[in-house]
Amino acid sequence: MAPVGALLQRALRVHQVYGANTDVGKTILTTILCNSASKIWKNEQVSYLKPVSTGAQDDADEGSGGVHSPGPSRTTQADLYAPLRMPVILVGDSKLGGISQTVSAFESLRLRGYDVESVLLFRDAVYENYRYLTDYFGDNYGISVESVAEPPKRYEDAQAERDSMTEYYAEVSEQKTVHDILTRLDKRHENRITRLEEMPTKAHGHIWYPFTQHKPLLPDRITAIDSAYGDHFQTLRSQPTTSSSPETNLLRPSFDGSASWWTQGLGHANPKLTLAAAYAAGRYGHVMFAEAIHEPALALAETLLKNIQNPRLNRVFFSDNGSTGCEVAVKMALRAARTRYGWGPDAKLGILGLKGSYHGDTIGAMDCAEPCTFNENVEWYEGKGFWFDYPTVQCTEGKWVVDVPEGLKADLGNGEEFTTMADVFDVEGREQGEGSRKYEAYIERTLEALQKQGRKFVCPGPSLYETHIPRDPLFQRTLVNVVRRSPHLFATGDSQSPAQETDATWKGLPVVFDEVFTGLYRLGRYTASSFLGVHPDVSVHAKLLTGGLVPLCTTLASDSVFEAFLSDDKSDALLHGHSYTAHPVGCQVALESLQEMQHMEKRGSWDAFKQDGWVSPESLQSPETTPRGANDSIVWSVWSHSFIDAVSHNSARVAGIWALGSVLAITLRSEGSVGYKSSAALTLQTRLREGYEEGRWNVHSRVLGNVFYIMTGQKTSRSTVRELETVLREVLMM
Amino acid sequence: MAPVGALLQRALRVHQVYGANTDVGKTILTTILCNSASKIWKNEQVSYLKPVSTGAQDDADEGSGGVHSPGPSRTTQADLYAPLRMPVILVGDSKLGGISQTVSAFESLRLRGYDVESVLLFRDAVYENYRYLTDYFGDNYGISVESVAEPPKRYEDAQAERDSMTEYYAEVSEQKTVHDILTRLDKRHENRITRLEEMPTKAHGHIWYPFTQHKPLLPDRITAIDSAYGDHFQTLRSQPTTSSSPETNLLRPSFDGSASWWTQGLGHANPKLTLAAAYAAGRYGHVMFAEAIHEPALALAETLLKNIQNPRLNRVFFSDNGSTGCEVAVKMALRAARTRYGWGPDAKLGILGLKGSYHGDTIGAMDCAEPCTFNENVEWYEGKGFWFDYPTVQCTEGKWVVDVPEGLKADLGNGEEFTTMADVFDVEGREQGEGSRKYEAYIERTLEALQKQGRKFVCPGPSLYETHIPRDPLFQRTLVNVVRRSPHLFATGDSQSPAQETDATWKGLPVVFDEVFTGLYRLGRYTASSFLGVHPDVSVHAKLLTGGLVPLCTTLASDSVFEAFLSDDKSDALLHGHSYTAHPVGCQVALESLQEMQHMEKRGSWDAFKQDGWVSPESLQSPETTPRGANDSIVWSVWSHSFIDAVSHNSARVAGIWALGSVLAITLRSEGSVGYKSSAALTLQTRLREGYEEGRWNVHSRVLGNVFYIMTGQKTSRSTVRELETVLREVLMM
Repeated sequence: MAPVGALLQRALRVHQVYGANTDVGKTILTTILCNSASKIWKNEQVSYLKPVSTGAQDDADEGSGGVHSPGPSRTTQADLYAPLRMPVILVGDSKLGGISQTVSAFESLRLRGYDVESVLLFRDAVYENYRYLTDYFGDNYGISVESVAEPPKRYEDAQAERDSMTEYYAEVSEQKTVHDILTRLDKRHENRITRLEEMPTKAHGHIWYPFTQHKPLLPDRITAIDSAYGDHFQTLRSQPTTSSSPETNLLRPSFDGSASWWTQGLGHANPKLTLAAAYAAGRYGHVMFAEAIHEPALALAETLLKNIQNPRLNRVFFSDNGSTGCEVAVKMALRAARTRYGWGPDAKLGILGLKGSYHGDTIGAMDCAEPCTFNENVEWYEGKGFWFDYPTVQCTEGKWVVDVPEGLKADLGNGEEFTTMADVFDVEGREQGEGSRKYEAYIERTLEALQKQGRKFVCPGPSLYETHIPRDPLFQRTLVNVVRRSPHLFATGDSQSPAQETDATWKGLPVVFDEVFTGLYRLGRYTASSFLGVHPDVSVHAKLLTGGLVPLCTTLASDSVFEAFLSDDKSDALLHGHSYTAHPVGCQVALESLQEMQHMEKRGSWDAFKQDGWVSPESLQSPETTPRGANDSIVWSVWSHSFIDAVSHNSARVAGIWALGSVLAITLRSEGSVGYKSSAALTLQTRLREGYEEGRWNVHSRVLGNVFYIMTGQKTSRSTVRELETVLREVLMM
Repeated sequence: MAPVGALLQRALRVHQVYGANTDVGKTILTTILCNSASKIWKNEQVSYLKPVSTGAQDDADEGSGGVHSPGPSRTTQADLYAPLRMPVILVGDSKLGGISQTVSAFESLRLRGYDVESVLLFRDAVYENYRYLTDYFGDNYGISVESVAEPPKRYEDAQAERDSMTEYYAEVSEQKTVHDILTRLDKRHENRITRLEEMPTKAHGHIWYPFTQHKPLLPDRITAIDSAYGDHFQTLRSQPTTSSSPETNLLRPSFDGSASWWTQGLGHANPKLTLAAAYAAGRYGHVMFAEAIHEPALALAETLLKNIQNPRLNRVFFSDNGSTGCEVAVKMALRAARTRYGWGPDAKLGILGLKGSYHGDTIGAMDCAEPCTFNENVEWYEGKGFWFDYPTVQCTEGKWVVDVPEGLKADLGNGEEFTTMADVFDVEGREQGEGSRKYEAYIERTLEALQKQGRKFVCPGPSLYETHIPRDPLFQRTLVNVVRRSPHLFATGDSQSPAQETDATWKGLPVVFDEVFTGLYRLGRYTASSFLGVHPDVSVHAKLLTGGLVPLCTTLASDSVFEAFLSDDKSDALLHGHSYTAHPVGCQVALESLQEMQHMEKRGSWDAFKQDGWVSPESLQSPETTPRGANDSIVWSVWSHSFIDAVSHNSARVAGIWALGSVLAITLRSEGSVGYKSSAALTLQTRLREGYEEGRWNVHSRVLGNVFYIMTGQKTSRSTVRELETVLREVLMM
């Protein structure tokens, strides 16, 4: 089933008429508008559609009852019609109490992204609501309020009633007020289209895009997004719309295949997240956070600490995005290690990481990544640390292959093959094998060599996952294990002997996990660290944290790390903060988002996905009786096992495929340049974006060189994912 | 007039009864609740207050009409009572269309931060709205819906009617449903107080605060903020509330004297900002921004570029906060200068700045500041640049004194005195004088010496203002002028000769202004750069940008800077971006906020302030006829001239005072340590915070060592500021 597109055509002017209440004269006023329109535009068809009762092609769509009257599906009308984004004429309530009803109805529409173009009501002489409402909507929202005379009193005689109403309609429909409304609506319709069509060119002239080389960027490559709903953007068709038929729908739904840069979880324009944001805005606005506490921040901190089920973590620091959150994490680790080993403030400290990591674009976060395309031309970048190369995992021709890079084969052997993805993630089982011994020995040798060079390190990390290069989880687990049991490998000539290390504190080095991308159900579990069976000392969470609405990041730390900053000197504090630290809107939205995702897990909302080849139905415990986390040993994806298997056999095009949770990554075979600079995945991306076949939906995705990746939200339906799989398989065969 | 406090007492349980519509049985249901309460709590007084009609002391407060029915002041009830934050019982509408009315009324309350504790309505047998609403509120919000039998049909005979209703009341008031509602409300009242009282201790245990040395931080120093409205936080009283009288109001309004870290402009919980945020959330959620454009982002970019009136700026880059925005600005300047002078990617580049600057806490932003308390213990910090010492400006004993630091007197002379602040800011006039020549000569000599050392610079800035150390604007203007006319001073041995410099491009070095704190009316004008009469090549704007609601930052740049990143190589792009780049919620709120502040300027909302000693009424052109910017030559503050003058004469306590726009800074005389580590201002801060006298409002402020600063929002009333002045003067005399 193709998704619903917003209604916008050049010739067809559709307006939705909502009533502020039942019995406010919606039918009468809609009739007046239609009569009047028929006179102004004599050669055009004017008609109106009453939902439920008729299904004819029309241009004024009148909702029955009030804005929140439930439809047959029990969804209220305001929610049901929101994705169509028809401009709204709100029929105000002229009766006693009608001011309140009109304003509330307006607010309910507004918080679903409706554009209310006009408020129209009867000119009641007793309450004169139109007077108050004219000022209210004019002053606050620049929306004009128009009023027309009330209909005549009713006659018992049918003919008299008909005559009376005919006269009333004839008179009112001729009024300038009504004509003005219609011509204004018509003008706004035109302006809306003109603006949408101009947006790419204007953006091209004034916007400086993130991560974008502007030289080859032309306006036609810029997508104008009118709105978004659920899984889809509503985008302006990229072909020249002026040449298309006047009946062509100018907007079309485009699947948000990057989950809006990995942030999207509960669907675009989710009314519950909207109302959570609005509630916090209405209760606090923003309140400054130093030495203060408010409910959404405290509740969020408590929720995260409780649900993350890591006994080490007990402190929450708030910042605005993954990059700042990683800087905070590294500042924490730097201080903790420096204090432990007694290094001076000028000691050159680095992180122990994995190659190909990315933690954000502020300089401190960049410095955690090894030199690569992302930073090679960035002034002030200076990679600080050592980055291990590592074995990767992908599904190739139906097998899950742990692949060892050429340069490491002498140390790590030739890799392994597994039958299922679950086998790869059985890190405790694999830890008993010979492969694990080789990993340990290699990591120890490397650390010894670095120690001999006098290098000082502060943490392994701050990331153990990257999507575009799936890493062998055993290698990562082994790195943490070796680091934690080897404090002697990190002491240097000028180190003090490490303080007594108890179970309560970190050992070796503090372990930092960057879970910005991977945590909070993106990979199907609350934390990514659970895949490694490791409890980090510091972990960073953002993106899905706020379900895809506003920026917020949390850095969680152990008390042991926290205590490294305690002193009598103010300048020993973690002197980091942002103006909007722990802003209530973000915290409230995060609470709502985490709660909803946990409910979904508890209700078994993803069980059908899990049973699509990942686990047997019997191994899924009853969601009703299973507390969260009991299924944490499950390795699964929304992408079906049979799809992964099939694509992995397309060896002419596909080098490997990998899926976990809502993420899918396909490594394409590419000639010429590889990695980030490759354009192998671009062709695939372009085909999906243009919509390779009329009637098929198109997909908005992002690529990284020869890796094509795509992900869904956490609420994307199973049928949608299966349709996407069909689309992807077909495009991959083209 | 003391501000309104939220109503929360231990013994008095107050609930506000709102009706979803008029004529929904609010009076009957409130009577039932009161009757029932009288029976459950026999020894306590139960009563209810109908606003407007009576003013008695009471515990159930029944709003007349619907939630948005206007009160006598024309403000609707939902807005009028919001600051009291009474828990709400919403009387649902059981009539035809009542589902819609009830849901919309709920949403209007929710987006003003009300907690709706219970929905109560008649059990109408025809429409059965209670069935739908029970599911709706239960599933979506965990709010329980209770219904009671409808009242009996009315009798014409008065006695019969009375008897019938008495019987009805007696029966319904005894029902378990009603008792359950009351005991639940009672429990929630208790829980609310318990939670508020526990919050500081819980926060002390789990929150890692920004900029805070935790060792001396005890729970009693942590402020529990229940909510905020307008200029005030509603905070839990810090004295042990258990020992206070049961009639003590547990919450009290506390003036937000740091404008929530300089972000607050249009008042906490401003309904228009809330609705702007909700609209964008409902229309888009968040949509990813690379190669895409949406209306709020484009409109915001266009608005800023137009209103900032700097012909150089033509590009807008979005990020999340001032720190990331400054990192982006510096990345821009680094590349522009490196390209111009042909330096290699490994050249050591620094910025030319002023001492005492602060641009944020990410490592790149920290590196722009000279070594100081903020960064002396921060690993990975490495100040990159050269920072000029500079003359300061303050009002001392009624004179505006330009004070030259001891070390610069040989070069710059002994400073100057001016009669008015406007004289100090008359930079074009002062530029003709001898002081200006000295500044130029000194800056040129310094740059020559740096050049001889082979130092490479990329921009002066990225800040020309800091609040706590007001700088002589002429010195800053001179620095920019010298830099712009002296490309020869920045070429080094390995430089290529600078490309042909036309008027369209920057000269010497790109000039970066960090206006995060100072721009967008904080200092009374749209830009801070206008005070210097300088057009920067890059400028950074945040904080007030979103009026004090959610994080957002914009970095504006010239095309000339932009073009330095154009090439055929992707890795030459500005590879910076955040997940929530240009998030629609932030952009929409920013648009609303900027529009409102501009309207205020145009309407002359600040004219009365301006006439309090800063300018003569005649020199204020008519706000009706003056386009924005025409008054840009005015130097003014919300703090009255007479207040500044008076405090400046308190020479026993005050070394100097300074005010501009909404900002006031007082440098206190301090014994012992100075600067950030001084605690001179702490005493003042504590007195204001505790409320030095019962009945006087208290003030929540922030200090920086011996500098006490305080600011208002852009909507704070003149009478509030004058009251604050009185409070400050009194506290300063203590």
